[in-house]
Amino acid sequence: MHAEIITIGDEILIGQIIDTNSAFLGKEFNKAGISIYQITSIQDDKMHILKALKEAEENADIIIITGGLGPTKDDITKHTLCEYFDDTLVEDKTVLANVEDIFSKYNIPLLDVNKQQALVPSKSKVLMNHNGTAPGMWLEKNGKVFVSLPGVPFEMKALITDQVIPKLRTQFKFPYITHKTLLTYGLGESSLAARIEEWQNNLPNFIKLAYLPSLGRVRIRLSGKAADEAMLNAEIQKQVSLVLPLIEDIFVGYEEDESIETIIGKRLTELGQTLAVAESCTGGRIAQAFTANAGASAFFKGSVVTYATASKVKILKVSEDDIKSHSVVSKEVAETMAKNVRVLFNSDYAISTTGNAGPTKGDSEAEIGTVCIAIATKDAIYSEEFNFGKHRERVIGKATNKAFEMLRKEI
Amino acid sequence: MHAEIITIGDEILIGQIIDTNSAFLGKEFNKAGISIYQITSIQDDKMHILKALKEAEENADIIIITGGLGPTKDDITKHTLCEYFDDTLVEDKTVLANVEDIFSKYNIPLLDVNKQQALVPSKSKVLMNHNGTAPGMWLEKNGKVFVSLPGVPFEMKALITDQVIPKLRTQFKFPYITHKTLLTYGLGESSLAARIEEWQNNLPNFIKLAYLPSLGRVRIRLSGKAADEAMLNAEIQKQVSLVLPLIEDIFVGYEEDESIETIIGKRLTELGQTLAVAESCTGGRIAQAFTANAGASAFFKGSVVTYATASKVKILKVSEDDIKSHSVVSKEVAETMAKNVRVLFNSDYAISTTGNAGPTKGDSEAEIGTVCIAIATKDAIYSEEFNFGKHRERVIGKATNKAFEMLRKEI
Repeated sequence: MHAEIITIGDEILIGQIIDTNSAFLGKEFNKAGISIYQITSIQDDKMHILKALKEAEENADIIIITGGLGPTKDDITKHTLCEYFDDTLVEDKTVLANVEDIFSKYNIPLLDVNKQQALVPSKSKVLMNHNGTAPGMWLEKNGKVFVSLPGVPFEMKALITDQVIPKLRTQFKFPYITHKTLLTYGLGESSLAARIEEWQNNLPNFIKLAYLPSLGRVRIRLSGKAADEAMLNAEIQKQVSLVLPLIEDIFVGYEEDESIETIIGKRLTELGQTLAVAESCTGGRIAQAFTANAGASAFFKGSVVTYATASKVKILKVSEDDIKSHSVVSKEVAETMAKNVRVLFNSDYAISTTGNAGPTKGDSEAEIGTVCIAIATKDAIYSEEFNFGKHRERVIGKATNKAFEMLRKEI
Repeated sequence: MHAEIITIGDEILIGQIIDTNSAFLGKEFNKAGISIYQITSIQDDKMHILKALKEAEENADIIIITGGLGPTKDDITKHTLCEYFDDTLVEDKTVLANVEDIFSKYNIPLLDVNKQQALVPSKSKVLMNHNGTAPGMWLEKNGKVFVSLPGVPFEMKALITDQVIPKLRTQFKFPYITHKTLLTYGLGESSLAARIEEWQNNLPNFIKLAYLPSLGRVRIRLSGKAADEAMLNAEIQKQVSLVLPLIEDIFVGYEEDESIETIIGKRLTELGQTLAVAESCTGGRIAQAFTANAGASAFFKGSVVTYATASKVKILKVSEDDIKSHSVVSKEVAETMAKNVRVLFNSDYAISTTGNAGPTKGDSEAEIGTVCIAIATKDAIYSEEFNFGKHRERVIGKATNKAFEMLRKEI
């Protein structure tokens, strides 16, 4: 049982937006036991949409189409669907009522072009969009399912979770798919692979292994697919228990759907402990990662981004002498930042970063890429100095990841 | 002249990573005058890769393949390229020297599997990767160009900019492609479309228009393609001057490759003025956006994320009386935050946010989605209250965008 995703919209092809919808769909479909065979991104162009639909129908059993349902002239998906299914558009009264309701709620004048959102192919089943005016449309042909959804991520996501996947489950029986991702820090992809090669060679054929390296860390992912859920889970569990002793020194934790900052947040919340952050070169990235998750207020007290050196002195009481003798990018300064931000916010833990992300040297003579990170607890402070290379974006990313890693080990 | 992008890797199809490479490629190719016909994401699977290569060869003149070049077992792209081009892998001495150099520089043991990175199809021209071990490979067949690149964004980007695009330019003559994006705030897509419909109907056929709605704003993009660069630029300029009077009240600025925070940063730097930020519900998102750009230290003094109410009182001197009488999510509190963070960091401008992002109410009785934003200058303070709905991620995103919009108008 395969699915294909077709995303429609020039904005993806010219790189004006990043296609986050497909990642969401990939994740949700996998959880439901449906493999994604291919993701195809194409233009708002009738002939191209028709071609993509035909190819997808040959490749897959379920075709999810996102985008191209807006009220404006560049959106032609609905008319093209009619051509593909030899159908015509008819007005759906429930959709029209929904459109009218939304416009009256926000007190916006209802235009004719908005009323056209209620036109759907006569052969389609409407999937009501409770978050916007463009409905989802479910069509079938030769036992294959086509679902056309709005491209607005928020609207698409609700339709997938609440309606598309439940409805697919009533029509198809899906195998069980599961992934287990192990997060490691500090060893390169090839050295890691060499270390666990023998174990990898002995994996059963229904479990695949993948390496996902990124800034300073490698994730290894076990993916299994089988009809028997209990057997598959037991086998994955067994394989994890075999590999863990081989990576003990570099293993940080599991990553289900979870990022390391989510794992840290959950752990702190369980422990009833709190965190404060003082950032310089990471510029708010660490705070932002923690507060992106709901429930952050249970453990996250706050942060200070002391970007300018003067603000380190004024707000975090870093001594001017330390800055003179050790430079503003130093373990000493990082430690004072961590110590004092912990006191400032009255938290159990604190983490601080100070560094030169480049491309030019700032208030410090430290080499570009130098970053000092400190962790403070009620009882102790420690810090490390790193060099994360010459590329600003990567320096910020690596420093953020390293800060998470150090904090994770501390808790 | 069309290009197609093929991305290889299960991690995209199962949604474990978001495909940012394609957006970069789309943007850079467009700038160079090359239209992307299609983006196809497929698994690490030999038959599927062969099928995708064949289809891309039919559709496009230039085929860019990213991913699948890592040293570990899940990567099979190189062997599949040999099969497609009826070729064999040979060792490239320059690539081997590069691999050895990287490993000795970082003092990592060089394994046999790493040496295999130096194997390339004998018919390929090597594109040296100065940032990693996997080289780019340039192959040709029936006048069509295939370029295989590593999937690591950082390595891929440098190869595209420094080698692939310059080399394509020596072999092909590309038309001129240009985009002009106008950023509007505060009017819905369909109302905007209705307002400018007559103008849109009169656009010449080599200029396309697209609407890109997102949290609280609509971008309208003019895309032109022609052999004559001067004529195209003049026509785009003319069309912009025709539409501007129609959208005067909602027009914020142009968005070239630039986000609104980049525009603000440049403007402040030109004026020699500075900014400080006090964030509550946006949790560091605003600071992070400003500091993501190089040169931020010229205007960005720093920020405080006062997530906990106590820290608003302690660090930003918000009065407990104000919190009691107006609630912590109030224009009064936002104004004090902005006023005091400006003084704390000694900046010219300050911006503050306080709100309930949900999903549950925090320290305030304010409705979920309520956000107050304040701007402080040396002479004045003003604030506005908004409701951004019930969805945490969208509330944070809309509040951040609105803060940028308010600040942009102020400067």
